[in-house]
Amino acid sequence: MRRLQVKSAAGEYQVVVGRGAWRALARLRGYSSAFVLTEPGLWRRWGRTFARAAGWGHVRPILVPAGETSKSLLMAGRVASELLDRGADRRSLLLALGGGVVGDLGGFVASTYMRGIDYVQAPTTVLAQVDSAIGGKTAVNIGAMKNLVGTFYAPRLVVSEPAVLSSLSPRAFRSGFYEAVKHGILSGPGLFSWLEARLAGLRPKDTGLLESVVARAAQVKVEVVTRDEREAGLRRILNLGHTFGHALEEATAYRRFLHGEAVAWGILMATRLAELIGLLAPAVGGRISGLVHSVGPLPPIRGLREEKVLALLPRDKKAVGGKVHWVLPEGIGKIKVTPEVPAAAVGSAFREVQRGVWNA
Amino acid sequence: MRRLQVKSAAGEYQVVVGRGAWRALARLRGYSSAFVLTEPGLWRRWGRTFARAAGWGHVRPILVPAGETSKSLLMAGRVASELLDRGADRRSLLLALGGGVVGDLGGFVASTYMRGIDYVQAPTTVLAQVDSAIGGKTAVNIGAMKNLVGTFYAPRLVVSEPAVLSSLSPRAFRSGFYEAVKHGILSGPGLFSWLEARLAGLRPKDTGLLESVVARAAQVKVEVVTRDEREAGLRRILNLGHTFGHALEEATAYRRFLHGEAVAWGILMATRLAELIGLLAPAVGGRISGLVHSVGPLPPIRGLREEKVLALLPRDKKAVGGKVHWVLPEGIGKIKVTPEVPAAAVGSAFREVQRGVWNA
Repeated sequence: MRRLQVKSAAGEYQVVVGRGAWRALARLRGYSSAFVLTEPGLWRRWGRTFARAAGWGHVRPILVPAGETSKSLLMAGRVASELLDRGADRRSLLLALGGGVVGDLGGFVASTYMRGIDYVQAPTTVLAQVDSAIGGKTAVNIGAMKNLVGTFYAPRLVVSEPAVLSSLSPRAFRSGFYEAVKHGILSGPGLFSWLEARLAGLRPKDTGLLESVVARAAQVKVEVVTRDEREAGLRRILNLGHTFGHALEEATAYRRFLHGEAVAWGILMATRLAELIGLLAPAVGGRISGLVHSVGPLPPIRGLREEKVLALLPRDKKAVGGKVHWVLPEGIGKIKVTPEVPAAAVGSAFREVQRGVWNA
Repeated sequence: MRRLQVKSAAGEYQVVVGRGAWRALARLRGYSSAFVLTEPGLWRRWGRTFARAAGWGHVRPILVPAGETSKSLLMAGRVASELLDRGADRRSLLLALGGGVVGDLGGFVASTYMRGIDYVQAPTTVLAQVDSAIGGKTAVNIGAMKNLVGTFYAPRLVVSEPAVLSSLSPRAFRSGFYEAVKHGILSGPGLFSWLEARLAGLRPKDTGLLESVVARAAQVKVEVVTRDEREAGLRRILNLGHTFGHALEEATAYRRFLHGEAVAWGILMATRLAELIGLLAPAVGGRISGLVHSVGPLPPIRGLREEKVLALLPRDKKAVGGKVHWVLPEGIGKIKVTPEVPAAAVGSAFREVQRGVWNA
């Protein structure tokens, strides 16, 4: 079991990673009541194990349908209504058991229900354990605009149990490791080389290794958000791969790519873009694309119109005054945030990666 | 012009009260864009005056229908969409020009749009100028549950122009002064006696006096929220009259009473309740009910079933573990918050005030 410590303006909390992490919930005290927000399939498979580990006795969860469409204001309102009907007050606790959707929605509801109650993240996907459950960003989507509305609101605790990852489809399992790759690039040669030796062929049953990968990748997120909770500066580097990634997701109506897969393509494009403008040595670009591809096959991006994708870039939330702030690798562990990128290079980076003419 | 200073955990800001207060907006700098959220009728009457005073040139406002139904998650999502479509980014400013509905909704949208942008409150009702625009509480309603979802999020500035109050209906105008009465009770004999000599017969055209009343009543709110922004303790005294008040509003589906009117009845009931449990001397209770009645006639509360109203009390947001925390006057400027109130006294207080057998 590993315990990572987040220190942020909104408070300190632990990220507990490892077999038996849910048992840490038994230590939580002083709440008038506790509620679990989760998805039906997940609860069928893990509900009993969860309740026993947490020592919460009989739990009747608040259920939302699986999938991105649950990350809406409509659903947030429904969950708030259910909390009210069940007697949740300002001293109640909400626990989000699920992937990014449940975590983002649950965090948003917790941050706004009666103007804020405590919550715990119990992430059940690689992506959520490595990335989205840490850092106190909550969100819902508005129409096609992902995460347009949300809050910064620190959880009381994050408990990441690797055993649940065995329920993920192979594709969903892999998808989360692209965020781990991102964290390797952000962190530096130590973690990056360590991942190069371990990511290829990683399976859910490799529990010991899996726990190490999740914990080391999560540690990067912990360090970044500890130093900058509100994205004023440093935290923006976490957006590596997300500018193109979000545009790819939006251009395909969130149907073709899992989030991690879109980020993987986005990392490749940002890396190629960094090479094209002379920021990154091609040898390093090669290592980055090599690590991305080592995770496994990505869904193809053929058929996507370049103009459509490029037009969506300024809609990224990190854009200011219509200008995209690019997060680009200058090297392993060296990131540059800059609005000064020629449009022609952006187009070329997209095309070369799309056509597979660069490090494919 | 009076400038009150709020110092809260979320930041410091000024509350500018007086003729020409909107001109303070001209000093705001450094935003990528600015947007006005308001209601159609208000904008027709005051839009041009506002834009000229603010020095904002041509303004195309974001409009929401007048009335409580606009304070919804659905409307918050629509406003966020419109902000996005108009190019609002993280450095944009949102100004809420309106009463409590526009202020609460605008504050909520600002606190969640891209996880938070700056906003300004430009309150246009007595109630909003005296109370709701100050303190950084934002909210929307969920179904019949008022303010169930919201945030604590300090505005950048509050600008209260008394000239707009002349557009209010006589009833809406009066309604806001019940919150001023509440502030008089909370504050102490100085303000209370001052209000006793001035509230009766106050008219929108008494501009000098109106400005004084608004500024002095607003000052009480400023002081309370400066000392306790998040309702952990002191701020709860602001809930005086609101436990019964919210139940009355809910029992009548928000149709019979304006918010201030429901609070007025709630103050009367809380005052009688304090008398009944021996907390408050009847002579002081008489002064309180006298000041409430001096504002003007209230809509009748006859016909409301006692059991229905009492059953709604534990649904108040300030209830913890199903227990209502009563905010009761022990004297002018002396408030007690307590869960220890016999149910029989609560019923009696309601009945006596409803039947007009106490200080009517």
